[in-house]
Amino acid sequence: MKIAVLPGDGIGTEIVAEAVNVLNALGLKFEMEHALVGGAAFDAHGHPLPESTLKLAMASDAVLFGAVGDWKYDKLDRPLRPEQAILGLRKHMGLFANFRPAICYEQLVGASSLKPELISGLDILIIRELTGDIYFGQPRGRRTAVDGHFPGTEEAFDTMRYSKPEIERIAHVAFQAARKRNKKVTSVDKANVLETFQFWKDVVTEVHAQYPDVELQHMYVDNAAMQLVKAPKAFDVVVTGNMFGDILSDEASMLTGSIGMLPSASLNAKGQGLYEPSHGSAPDIAGKGVANPLATILSAAMMLRFSLNQPDAADRIEAAVQKVLAQGLRTPDIYSEGTTKVGTAEMGAAVVKAL
Amino acid sequence: MKIAVLPGDGIGTEIVAEAVNVLNALGLKFEMEHALVGGAAFDAHGHPLPESTLKLAMASDAVLFGAVGDWKYDKLDRPLRPEQAILGLRKHMGLFANFRPAICYEQLVGASSLKPELISGLDILIIRELTGDIYFGQPRGRRTAVDGHFPGTEEAFDTMRYSKPEIERIAHVAFQAARKRNKKVTSVDKANVLETFQFWKDVVTEVHAQYPDVELQHMYVDNAAMQLVKAPKAFDVVVTGNMFGDILSDEASMLTGSIGMLPSASLNAKGQGLYEPSHGSAPDIAGKGVANPLATILSAAMMLRFSLNQPDAADRIEAAVQKVLAQGLRTPDIYSEGTTKVGTAEMGAAVVKAL
Ligand SMILES: CC(C)[C@H](C(=O)O)[C@@H](O)C(=O)O
Ligand SMILES: CC(C)[C@H](C(=O)O)[C@@H](O)C(=O)O
Repeated sequence: MKIAVLPGDGIGTEIVAEAVNVLNALGLKFEMEHALVGGAAFDAHGHPLPESTLKLAMASDAVLFGAVGDWKYDKLDRPLRPEQAILGLRKHMGLFANFRPAICYEQLVGASSLKPELISGLDILIIRELTGDIYFGQPRGRRTAVDGHFPGTEEAFDTMRYSKPEIERIAHVAFQAARKRNKKVTSVDKANVLETFQFWKDVVTEVHAQYPDVELQHMYVDNAAMQLVKAPKAFDVVVTGNMFGDILSDEASMLTGSIGMLPSASLNAKGQGLYEPSHGSAPDIAGKGVANPLATILSAAMMLRFSLNQPDAADRIEAAVQKVLAQGLRTPDIYSEGTTKVGTAEMGAAVVKAL
Repeated sequence: MKIAVLPGDGIGTEIVAEAVNVLNALGLKFEMEHALVGGAAFDAHGHPLPESTLKLAMASDAVLFGAVGDWKYDKLDRPLRPEQAILGLRKHMGLFANFRPAICYEQLVGASSLKPELISGLDILIIRELTGDIYFGQPRGRRTAVDGHFPGTEEAFDTMRYSKPEIERIAHVAFQAARKRNKKVTSVDKANVLETFQFWKDVVTEVHAQYPDVELQHMYVDNAAMQLVKAPKAFDVVVTGNMFGDILSDEASMLTGSIGMLPSASLNAKGQGLYEPSHGSAPDIAGKGVANPLATILSAAMMLRFSLNQPDAADRIEAAVQKVLAQGLRTPDIYSEGTTKVGTAEMGAAVVKAL
C-alpha cells in the first residue's frame, strides 16, 4: 500500500505530520513517500505541482494531502499559484467524486453558529462532482465582446458544461452512498436558468430509475443554500456539480461549527483517492503548533476505508478521535470552557495513545 | 407617478393587494395599472410575460411585483415557465442592480436559526448584478462533446461572461451605497478558478480607486458562504455577480429568520425599478389568507424611495411596519409565543392604521 504524502503549505506540514504518526501507530505496512506541493513546491521547483509530485501521486494508491496556499503567492500568475496544484491533481488523477461529510460532533455542538436543536446529530454527506463544470470547461479567457449589453468592450468568459456520462457516474456514486445511509438523495441544480443543470436534472432522474429504494429530491441551488441554514438535518446525501458543490459544501461544514474536524475524500474510477481536511492552509496560525490535526487524521481514516481496504483500521482511528474528544482535549479552534486546551502535537499524540 | 402592479401567482395576489392598500392610504397620487404575469399570464394568454404586460412595465416609473411560480407549471417547456417572466422583465428593462437587504428585526431575532448574539442587529446589503453572467450568456444549449472527458457523448453547456462596463456600473452602485452606510464593500468572486471573476476582481479594484473613503475587501464565494454563517455582522455591502448573488442573497436572507420581512429592488440606469419581496410564491399556502404581506409592503417603501422620489412616504411605511411589530402582530411565519397571530388582510390593515 503506497501513500503519497503531500503536506503543502501553512499548517499543512504540522497537521499531516500528526496523521502520519497515527498511520504509523496502526501496526500496518505502508510505503509512505513525501513530496512538495503548492507554494512550497513553487519555492523549491518553480511550479506548484512539479512533474515528480504528480508522478508520485499517480503511482500511489492514495494521496494524503494537507493544504495549500499563502497570501505571499497572491501576486503570481494564476497557473503558478498554489491552488493550481489541487486542481491539477484532480484533473490528472481523474478524481471526479468528492465526498464531504458535514457532521456535528456532539461534544462540539456549542461551537456552531446554529441553535443546538437544529444542529445536534447532524450527519449529511455532500457529494460534489470534481472534474467537470465551469472549473475545466473550454473555451475561457478574455476577448472583445461581440454581443451582450456592451459589444466592442473587453469581456471575460468561462464555459460551464457537463456531458451525460459525467453526470451518470456521479449520480451512481450518490445513490450508492445513500443506500448505505438514509436512502435519500437531494440533487441540487439550477434547471430553471441553466441548460447544463436542466440536463443534470434529467440525467439524474434517469439514473434514479435504477435505485427505486432511494428517494430522490430535486432542489434549486439558491433554495439549497437556504434550507441548509433552516433545517440542515432534513438532508441525507446531497449531490451537485463542481461549482455549486464548492459553495454548498463549505456552507454546510461551517454550519457544524467543527470545520477543523471535517475530512474529505476525492476518488477516481480506479478507487485511487486524495484525502484532505475540509479546511484550508490557515497561514495566520501556521508554525504556531495550534492547528487542529483531527480533520487530517480523520481523512487518513477515510483513506484506509475507501482506497486501502482497511475498514477496521479506519474504525480504530475514528474511535480514538471520539475518545480524545470525550477526554475533553481541544485545540483552540474547538475549545470551550471546562475543556483542556492542547496543541497540534499533543492532540496527535493523544489520538495515537487512544488507538 | 405610474406604477405597474403585477401580482403574479400563489400568494402574490394576496400580498400585493395589501401593499396596494398601503400605497392608497398615503394620500399621494399614483396611477396604478394591474396586469397578469407568470403562470396567471400563461393561463390567460399562453405566455408568462405577455407583450402587453412588458409594455406596461416599460412605460411605468416602477413595477410592484408579487411572486411567480407554481408546481403545476413544472412540466412546461422552459420558455413558457413562470420564472421566465421575471428573467424577461430584468432583461428587457435592463434592471442590472439588485438590492437585497438582509436585516434582522429585533423583535424577530428568535426566529433565526442562528444564535441571537450572532444575528441581533444584523443589517447587510447584498448587491447582485442582475442582467449578466451565466444567466444570459450565449452560446448555451446541448450538443455532442468534441473534447472534455467523454468526447462524442451528449453534453449541455452555458456561457459565463462579464464585460468591463457591466462590472464597472455595478461596482459604482456598490461603492455609492456603502458611502451611505458603513463604508465597507466585500466583492465576492472566484478569481482563483474563473477567468470571468478574475476580471471582475480586477475591474472592481480599478473602480475602487475613485472611492478611497470606502474599504474594499475581496472574498472567494465559498468563503463568503461560510463567513455569512460564522459572522454575518462582519459584512456591510456585499457585491457580486448574478449567479453567486442568487445563492448568497438567499442564504443571507434565511439567516435573518425573517425572510417574510425582506424586500428587494431591481434598478436600471434610468432609475426605473422592479420591487418584490425576497421570498417566493409559496403555492402551499396560497389562497389561505395567512401569507406575510410585510416584505411586499416594505418593497413598496423601497419603490417610493428609489424610483418615485418620495422618501418621506417610504419612511412612514417603514415606521408603520415597526409599529405593528411592536404591537405584537405576527403572521404565522414569524409567530412566537406571547404574540398575536393575524392573517394577511389583518396585517395589511394594521399597517394602514399605523401610518
Ligand atoms: C482552492 C480552490 C481552487 C478549491 C476549489 O474551488 O475547488 C477549494 O475551494 C476547494 O473546495 O477545494
Ligand atoms: C426564479 C429564478 C429565475 C430567480 C433567479 O435565479 O434569479 C430567483 O431565484 C431570484 O433570485 O429572483
